[in-house]
Amino acid sequence: MTDFTFLCNECGARYPEDRALYVCPSCTSQQVPGGPTRGVLRVELAEPELPRRWPAPPLSSPDALAAFLPVHGPESFFSFAAGGTPLLPVPRLREALGMPRLFLKDDTRNPSGSTKDRASHLVVAKAIEYGYETVAAASTGNAATALAAAGAAAGIRTVVFVPATAPPAKLVQMASYGATLVPVAGTYDQAFELSVEACARFGWYNRNTALNPFTVEGKKTAALEIARDLAPEAPDVVVVPTGDGVIIAGIAKGFADLVRCGLLPRVPRLVAVQPERSGAIARALRSGAAEITPEPDAGSVADSLTVAAPRNAVMALKDIRASGGCGVLVSEEAILDAIPRLAAATAVFAEPAAAIALAGLEIALAEGLVSRGERVVLLVTGTGLKDVPSAARRVKVPAPVSPTLEAVEAILAG
Amino acid sequence: MTDFTFLCNECGARYPEDRALYVCPSCTSQQVPGGPTRGVLRVELAEPELPRRWPAPPLSSPDALAAFLPVHGPESFFSFAAGGTPLLPVPRLREALGMPRLFLKDDTRNPSGSTKDRASHLVVAKAIEYGYETVAAASTGNAATALAAAGAAAGIRTVVFVPATAPPAKLVQMASYGATLVPVAGTYDQAFELSVEACARFGWYNRNTALNPFTVEGKKTAALEIARDLAPEAPDVVVVPTGDGVIIAGIAKGFADLVRCGLLPRVPRLVAVQPERSGAIARALRSGAAEITPEPDAGSVADSLTVAAPRNAVMALKDIRASGGCGVLVSEEAILDAIPRLAAATAVFAEPAAAIALAGLEIALAEGLVSRGERVVLLVTGTGLKDVPSAARRVKVPAPVSPTLEAVEAILAG
Repeated sequence: MTDFTFLCNECGARYPEDRALYVCPSCTSQQVPGGPTRGVLRVELAEPELPRRWPAPPLSSPDALAAFLPVHGPESFFSFAAGGTPLLPVPRLREALGMPRLFLKDDTRNPSGSTKDRASHLVVAKAIEYGYETVAAASTGNAATALAAAGAAAGIRTVVFVPATAPPAKLVQMASYGATLVPVAGTYDQAFELSVEACARFGWYNRNTALNPFTVEGKKTAALEIARDLAPEAPDVVVVPTGDGVIIAGIAKGFADLVRCGLLPRVPRLVAVQPERSGAIARALRSGAAEITPEPDAGSVADSLTVAAPRNAVMALKDIRASGGCGVLVSEEAILDAIPRLAAATAVFAEPAAAIALAGLEIALAEGLVSRGERVVLLVTGTGLKDVPSAARRVKVPAPVSPTLEAVEAILAG
Repeated sequence: MTDFTFLCNECGARYPEDRALYVCPSCTSQQVPGGPTRGVLRVELAEPELPRRWPAPPLSSPDALAAFLPVHGPESFFSFAAGGTPLLPVPRLREALGMPRLFLKDDTRNPSGSTKDRASHLVVAKAIEYGYETVAAASTGNAATALAAAGAAAGIRTVVFVPATAPPAKLVQMASYGATLVPVAGTYDQAFELSVEACARFGWYNRNTALNPFTVEGKKTAALEIARDLAPEAPDVVVVPTGDGVIIAGIAKGFADLVRCGLLPRVPRLVAVQPERSGAIARALRSGAAEITPEPDAGSVADSLTVAAPRNAVMALKDIRASGGCGVLVSEEAILDAIPRLAAATAVFAEPAAAIALAGLEIALAEGLVSRGERVVLLVTGTGLKDVPSAARRVKVPAPVSPTLEAVEAILAG
């Protein structure tokens, strides 16, 4: 698959891939400091290039990926086993919620432990096609870790800018992959701006979410896998933890491409789940506002979702609304509670920003936004091992006991 | 697959599956306190039951598992996506080591993050077949976490006994899955004995490694996947991090079953990699001793491999020797160094007990035990996210910097 154009999400301008583009050159003059990124580009695959049938499994193979993604060919994909994660039927959670057709897409089982590996695989493949020697990114943690992992797999240098307050596990993990780590004494937004300046100064390729059009495009593989694993049935609803709005736009893009291919009847309704303490997209969906209102005081235990002005808000709002979807808001308490509840019901141990999907689904059920009989997929985006201290806030590790049956009986008695 | 017998690894006695057996009823009188477990049983599948061809993919599906494992049928396997992990070609590590046919089996990508999920899946399936309501285990950490995860998936109660010194991430993870956690102020061996007593007292099924014959059997699926992914070629050598000797015996059993099935020409040479500070099996292999010498002062940063007297030593020594394999010993420094080296070369972030495979391979190469042209598979058994503090000992997370290009330049200058 080589033939595609960049299409501006806002003004509709089209650009050929004659260079590495970020946002729309015509729209960027409207950029407002502290607001969402304007003029985010979509990748539009040329009609004759679209597959008309599912490739042979696995969908995560270079051949299959190249059929759906904008690269020169399968050889663009270096060895990096992103995606190909299981779609679990979760029988015990089905029973608990009275939802006989519920599924869980377990994206904790990616190489670095999060959905972000999908985007990093494509972005690093494109960086190599474009001839860059270094790829940089700003991130709350998971995207930078994923970039570091993909860079290690490909043998390309990575520089990652993260708020110094990111969970220590994420910092150690990205450093272990060999990334050059820049912990910024500041917010994600400051790290973002610094990474953009550094890419301009040093000639690096910038992977930043929303800014780089291949981050949305790379994440669409999760939607392709969901649709294929459910075929010939189709999902009714997909519940997506939402921060910057890039994952949910990627999910929408994957389903939309399948509709174009004739492989799926319609895009499922997308439910954006956000923390109450970082909920600009969900609030706009609920109020009907055309645009998001930035939340400068955003701050949630779901660190991966914490952002003052979601970078990809314009595209995400458009996509969610087009799907007939909605937004829900989850309290900090409910996010933390969801971690052990999800783990105990499904054996999937998730970080706060991923376990939020369960809490969000329950709110959507209570509000009548989702019906119990629908075919619903929970996207669980990152492993709980990335943020053990948050999980520890809701489980009890008993004090050490002497090795006696009496001590065991005391623990059993609670 | 229902037809199998228990076969004593030492005296050769055979027993039908008319009840849940642990070790050989005839041999156990020889049990020596502080020594390895005697009379460990093997599962021997009946000849007519053996598959003669590879089942259709994926090998981790209930149908395929039931073709190779001793359960009543596919319905015994509750929904738990253990195994099915990628076999990576690791091009950059191949180049660094001059080993063009090196592969990495990435078992960090199991549901709870370790190879132990494979055994827990089978043991919990058997517990349900036998009618138990509770399954217990003693573990250095990963096996207990895996049991807790499998119990959550199946909806069966689990009780886990672990040294209170296990890495906190493992304790929090197993508690999140809903296991009843008994942190023992003592050694793994004390936790082991306590779990055996508690199972007898409370009528629980015991998953303890080596004691329960299905732990070896369950781990063999890693070997089945390696052989199938390499077919029609066959592996020459498999490098296996070794503690109790159960994983390496499981790997040997999987390959041996495939040889019986006619699906593999021979069992590959097995290289047991142990820490110098917990190396009883490797030392016996290197000295030619018939039996291991317990090491009461064992204590390594590779906590999952730390054991005074490897429980499955008798079977492991027999299997490794039968394969033409060997043992190597790795220093604490080399274990820690291997974590970022493996991550940066392959994008696989491993805990100390798993990264040791790389250090062990390099020693085996230097000692002439493995040749660079051979088809070698490194088994990487657990994710580095389970023990971030150990990884942190070998990487540098720079101090937070102000968001300026000058600060970036200072970091780049090193």
